[in-house]
Amino acid sequence: MSRTTLDDRDRELLSAPNFCHVSTLREDGTIHAVPIWVDVDSDHVVLNTETRRAWPKNLRRTGGATLTVLNMENPYEYLTITGHVAQETQDGAMEHIDAMARKYLGQDSYPFHQDGDVRVIFRIAPDRVHRHSPG
Amino acid sequence: MSRTTLDDRDRELLSAPNFCHVSTLREDGTIHAVPIWVDVDSDHVVLNTETRRAWPKNLRRTGGATLTVLNMENPYEYLTITGHVAQETQDGAMEHIDAMARKYLGQDSYPFHQDGDVRVIFRIAPDRVHRHSPG
Repeated sequence: MSRTTLDDRDRELLSAPNFCHVSTLREDGTIHAVPIWVDVDSDHVVLNTETRRAWPKNLRRTGGATLTVLNMENPYEYLTITGHVAQETQDGAMEHIDAMARKYLGQDSYPFHQDGDVRVIFRIAPDRVHRHSPG
Repeated sequence: MSRTTLDDRDRELLSAPNFCHVSTLREDGTIHAVPIWVDVDSDHVVLNTETRRAWPKNLRRTGGATLTVLNMENPYEYLTITGHVAQETQDGAMEHIDAMARKYLGQDSYPFHQDGDVRVIFRIAPDRVHRHSPG
């Protein structure tokens, strides 16, 4: 059965340095998918991106995405979330990508920033959550 | 730049025991995504499934899928393939899932088979291939 809210184990999987495969719809009707860093707050999956990439454009246009997160320590446990954009904001996005660099790279600041980059945070509200447990 | 054919490194990533996130379109227009085992032949990504699962139904209906494969040894290397069904066949599907069990589980035969299961192989021909190299 799918749920519409995140539980504690979902939040653990999203807080650990696992990768999130973001799937969005291209304008031609095919699916774009890419693995990215991921974060979570109490109710939302939190994604941070540079605005000129393909998936945030698709996300803005369609309003929705499907996310899969594999537990890197046991790939037979995974999370699938279909959701919609609850918030898009530039507020705090630079500080947040530094926090993501600490989580994923063990570095104090995000090392890949380029002049002209505009970073945003998308908060994704779940509409369907399914977690597959191993074994 | 995206390619339309697989190269040697793509085939290595698909031959290693990495997981493939299969994204397909649900009838309601949202995206279904799930991580599964994966194989490769010279020109196709090879997927093996029980026919009653959600994604093969979507794949039959739409004819296409997007696949992402992360290198589990270095998640900053990954492969994204948007493709279409070149072949669906039951021929050899039972032997093939045993080969997949050897690859992923180190077991001689697939341990999860249930009475009534109908297994099929889908061969996916790439329309767009993109490999992101680390660093």
